[in-house]
Amino acid sequence: MKKAAIINVTGYSGIELARILHRHPDIELTQVTGRSAVGQKLGEAFPHLSDIDMEIEAEVTESVDVVFSALPQTASAEALIPLVEQGVKSIDISADFRLKDATEYEDWYGVAHPKAQLLEESVYGLTELNRSDVRSATLVANPGCYPTGAILALAPAVREGLIHEDIIIDAKSGVSGAGRGLSLNTHFSEVNENVSAYSVSGHRHLPEITQELRRVRGGFDPKITFLPHLIPMTRGILDSCYATLKDGAIASGPEGIKELRALYESFYRDEPFVQVVGSSPMTKHTLGNNNCVIYPTVDLRTNRLMVVSCLDNLVKGAAGQAIQNMNLMLGLEETEGLEQLALYP
Amino acid sequence: MKKAAIINVTGYSGIELARILHRHPDIELTQVTGRSAVGQKLGEAFPHLSDIDMEIEAEVTESVDVVFSALPQTASAEALIPLVEQGVKSIDISADFRLKDATEYEDWYGVAHPKAQLLEESVYGLTELNRSDVRSATLVANPGCYPTGAILALAPAVREGLIHEDIIIDAKSGVSGAGRGLSLNTHFSEVNENVSAYSVSGHRHLPEITQELRRVRGGFDPKITFLPHLIPMTRGILDSCYATLKDGAIASGPEGIKELRALYESFYRDEPFVQVVGSSPMTKHTLGNNNCVIYPTVDLRTNRLMVVSCLDNLVKGAAGQAIQNMNLMLGLEETEGLEQLALYP
Amino acid sequence: MKKAAIINVTGYSGIELARILHRHPDIELTQVTGRSAVGQKLGEAFPHLSDIDMEIEAEVTESVDVVFSALPQTASAEALIPLVEQGVKSIDISADFRLKDATEYEDWYGVAHPKAQLLEESVYGLTELNRSDVRSATLVANPGCYPTGAILALAPAVREGLIHEDIIIDAKSGVSGAGRGLSLNTHFSEVNENVSAYSVSGHRHLPEITQELRRVRGGFDPKITFLPHLIPMTRGILDSCYATLKDGAIASGPEGIKELRALYESFYRDEPFVQVVGSSPMTKHTLGNNNCVIYPTVDLRTNRLMVVSCLDNLVKGAAGQAIQNMNLMLGLEETEGLEQLALYP
Amino acid sequence: MKKAAIINVTGYSGIELARILHRHPDIELTQVTGRSAVGQKLGEAFPHLSDIDMEIEAEVTESVDVVFSALPQTASAEALIPLVEQGVKSIDISADFRLKDATEYEDWYGVAHPKAQLLEESVYGLTELNRSDVRSATLVANPGCYPTGAILALAPAVREGLIHEDIIIDAKSGVSGAGRGLSLNTHFSEVNENVSAYSVSGHRHLPEITQELRRVRGGFDPKITFLPHLIPMTRGILDSCYATLKDGAIASGPEGIKELRALYESFYRDEPFVQVVGSSPMTKHTLGNNNCVIYPTVDLRTNRLMVVSCLDNLVKGAAGQAIQNMNLMLGLEETEGLEQLALYP
Repeated sequence: MKKAAIINVTGYSGIELARILHRHPDIELTQVTGRSAVGQKLGEAFPHLSDIDMEIEAEVTESVDVVFSALPQTASAEALIPLVEQGVKSIDISADFRLKDATEYEDWYGVAHPKAQLLEESVYGLTELNRSDVRSATLVANPGCYPTGAILALAPAVREGLIHEDIIIDAKSGVSGAGRGLSLNTHFSEVNENVSAYSVSGHRHLPEITQELRRVRGGFDPKITFLPHLIPMTRGILDSCYATLKDGAIASGPEGIKELRALYESFYRDEPFVQVVGSSPMTKHTLGNNNCVIYPTVDLRTNRLMVVSCLDNLVKGAAGQAIQNMNLMLGLEETEGLEQLALYP
Repeated sequence: MKKAAIINVTGYSGIELARILHRHPDIELTQVTGRSAVGQKLGEAFPHLSDIDMEIEAEVTESVDVVFSALPQTASAEALIPLVEQGVKSIDISADFRLKDATEYEDWYGVAHPKAQLLEESVYGLTELNRSDVRSATLVANPGCYPTGAILALAPAVREGLIHEDIIIDAKSGVSGAGRGLSLNTHFSEVNENVSAYSVSGHRHLPEITQELRRVRGGFDPKITFLPHLIPMTRGILDSCYATLKDGAIASGPEGIKELRALYESFYRDEPFVQVVGSSPMTKHTLGNNNCVIYPTVDLRTNRLMVVSCLDNLVKGAAGQAIQNMNLMLGLEETEGLEQLALYP
Repeated sequence: MKKAAIINVTGYSGIELARILHRHPDIELTQVTGRSAVGQKLGEAFPHLSDIDMEIEAEVTESVDVVFSALPQTASAEALIPLVEQGVKSIDISADFRLKDATEYEDWYGVAHPKAQLLEESVYGLTELNRSDVRSATLVANPGCYPTGAILALAPAVREGLIHEDIIIDAKSGVSGAGRGLSLNTHFSEVNENVSAYSVSGHRHLPEITQELRRVRGGFDPKITFLPHLIPMTRGILDSCYATLKDGAIASGPEGIKELRALYESFYRDEPFVQVVGSSPMTKHTLGNNNCVIYPTVDLRTNRLMVVSCLDNLVKGAAGQAIQNMNLMLGLEETEGLEQLALYP
Repeated sequence: MKKAAIINVTGYSGIELARILHRHPDIELTQVTGRSAVGQKLGEAFPHLSDIDMEIEAEVTESVDVVFSALPQTASAEALIPLVEQGVKSIDISADFRLKDATEYEDWYGVAHPKAQLLEESVYGLTELNRSDVRSATLVANPGCYPTGAILALAPAVREGLIHEDIIIDAKSGVSGAGRGLSLNTHFSEVNENVSAYSVSGHRHLPEITQELRRVRGGFDPKITFLPHLIPMTRGILDSCYATLKDGAIASGPEGIKELRALYESFYRDEPFVQVVGSSPMTKHTLGNNNCVIYPTVDLRTNRLMVVSCLDNLVKGAAGQAIQNMNLMLGLEETEGLEQLALYP
């Protein structure tokens, strides 16, 4: 059994890590910390976790094989830097080590990066694209929830050179993505029976998407408009991606759709957690599991690529993908602890 | 008092017409018909309408000043044709008289148009754009719910020649837009906590949008990708519209956003039911009222126009706009009966 | 036109007062105050109220015919006491003047009542039961949302002496009843897809219900268990009330149900805002309007009275009833400004 | 590996059985049948089950160790009778073998029981109360969703003789309990933002509750009022149970609450799937898992017992409890395949 700790178990990503790790056959969860609820039993603070007999502590003090941080940005870097320096395998759910360019980090997050030299070393943990780097990494930057769905949706088309650089990503998210902190924007009576766009002048997940799509194909420099929307549900993200197909990139007409789908299926053939489907998917088909479901198609009237992807923002978009990365980092089977089917309806 | 009748009061648009007309100071609702519930009191079938003491009848038999049809397509044309031919002012909530091209109607609706010569005569009832034609019309084709929001969102930019012809409209709708008819797609347990795209290969509201945007500016021939999504709420549509700004169309940077907003405000200056706003709107701010709220802005990173519009699909997207048109057709004040504020939260 | 002011317009009851008063034909809203958002236009803070061109002020400074306080308890009393002493007709949405017994107030609210002598003078504004007192009142204590539905549901049975004193009220409420203040209990991700009981050891609305049912029939001293539940919707309260019928109080079998219903219909015959119905009602049938719908029946297996009542907690349960009371206090028609039908679906 | 088949996998209980059995370490799911979708792959009809490579068939043809029927009543009996007669261990999710009295079955279900002699042999599969009978049963009648929560909530108080026979059960259910069949009552736009009571004149789950509570204590003959309510969520049932405590049954005041809780904890001490808690529980804490969470307390003002219980209607209220019973019938560990924690939030 490998030992794992969770820093800041008390947010939604943290409790989701605890939920999944508790059922993982090769992991023993040995410490959990919190910024609140220190001294409480995990099951007191979160009754659904009462099978896990642990106390929420103030700091990680024991030696572990892997540590997850579910702290917000900057606090997360501060907590992880000493652990990474000691060589503890670390997975950061926050955004602190995702952007390779410290200037860009400062632009988007408004503070200087606390340890820019770690940015080179850290691996962007979108497992399907960076599997071998994740395997040998000490520090994995777990991707944002929106970028996971958007990059997986677009990577095959980008890799194959099918599309021009103008890309629009219109995303719809459940409210749990905004976390457990209180705000009027996540107050039930304000969100229920409502939909709105937010972060219209620029959402922090945009630079991740751009950075990683650049890496998918040398010389590809996407101009992305990314607009997220908040919808009245708890879990789930659907990314609708639009781009213009290059002339002749695929066959015209319905043949092109088949060709596109075959190309996506081939790209993700051996992926345990990516499903390429032939009809419009639903977020509900991923509730509570680690799948990303991708539906690539063509708007035949305009020769535009449309790709829709669905995932559970707290699983493949956060805790599940973190554990997928952990499995690789510890030399375990990639799917271990993550085989749970979606809860439907 | 003018007399009005509603054909097929028993769907969601029909009962919304009844709800609003009941409080209209210059209208007496004299007959309502239904395809179901004939012989029942309106208040038996719909308890919230029990203040309206009327029986649901099989057919319109009395003489009225105006008739609304809330029947589905083709049935609606059949019911209205004889009334229009008698010169009764008619407002069709269905799609039967929206498309000017009978071939296009047949392509999208799968049947030959029952009376193509009426297509020329009918007026597309997007009030803000076609006010003077509506005033003198005998037959008004009330716009679809998605097109109302999308066309109003894009018309100022198109009229001013700001954008290229490639347009993406990503729409999010509450479930009442799908009507009162039963289907697995609108079964609570399937829709709740879920989001999905639908009609991916082409939604019937697309040709309306294209047709009307062409009319906004001579020679403008938009290539529109329109993708609607179903989200877990009852009422409300949010249309997110994306297009590329022509070079130099507006100032660059934040100045351009101001310029754009001024242009939109000017376009809709005297409109009682269109509000141009400077921050991201919510569908909840239009619940139960006849407003369309429009937020035009620019993605400064990509020089792309983004316009978000919100409305209540059963009011401005159906019954409310129909009554707005009726007011004009009958020479009444355009806002009469429609002054109700949104219900919030 | 009579002049009205709203103290603390920025909570959900306050904005609902503004929404309804704006459309009231005999009222001019002349001042609104807030504990937050002072200096902002009403429409900036609440876009759905942008038709109302007013600034949120810190205090009521002008002379008005009637003032509403939508402050929380104790703050509300403090704000209203000087106004009442000046003879300004005042309607308190808070609980400060509902309980006639200052000791009971202190027991439930944890502070000594700031002006116990006003408790005698104040009128409990459940309009249907206390209409004549409301008419001549200077200070009306607007009832709580749960008590409004529960007392109206039980009053006819109590008045007629049909039931024993053991009563159970199991209530289900939408989340807006908890107000606009933030708490984890009203955080979307916690409330959505969830139901729970709260205030199990005693909810503050209990003593109101007991006090008023005692007044309905001399000597009747109900022993009430009141358990409220929070359900995932924004507006609406359904009270399910259970009591044991006295032997022979009504006929046995289905005849007794008819008799009971006739008795309720007779009790509420002339009430514009109470509807007695013969089948199980829905809160949705009262969304946004001032009705309380009551369904009295008998569990024939156990000879138990069951009464279900539905209302909109922000309208008949708060702002609507307050305006109903205002109409009486100002000598206006009781229904003025309140004729709006429910929004459905 | 034991072999299992599911008759009628295409309803919500059926797909939940498939979901859980797929992850069961000692069960091989070898056949699934459907009344619809015959010939389709399970994953075509239900994409979240696409890891299960099976075709939906018309009938069970292979030999299995255990069969589940998720057919509606009467159809379920018809399908199971021949299998039971062959000695195949059978678990019926429907109501066909729950009531011991064939007359009562006919009264409530409107048809004569197809095989009344099996009623004696069948075991009511509320595992916690009938564990030893389940172990040796050939035919288990899986309890209804409401009765599971209600009986577990009341059994300790009844067994100990604490309460009088007058009992009120006010239940709140998510919509999935109504199944996958279409009806206006489960149409999204009708259920969302709504709450209502239903089956007011008597719900079919009442006689089960009465029958089983009688068996808990000889001579106890409860007079139960059971009123279910539909609330806008997909999964979850909360039963609020009220009864009058016998004088002196427990200590008065807060001591009595402690005593009561100790008694409940003792009653359920060794139960893996019942949690007795000391504060008000939420259905959300049981989402997707097999727990029933029970909160017993006393309304000290009226000396009334109040017990609130929560469970997931499709798991402990249907498929999960069926698998718990299967484990016992097949001599497996009772908790196998059911250890999953609740999905929260």
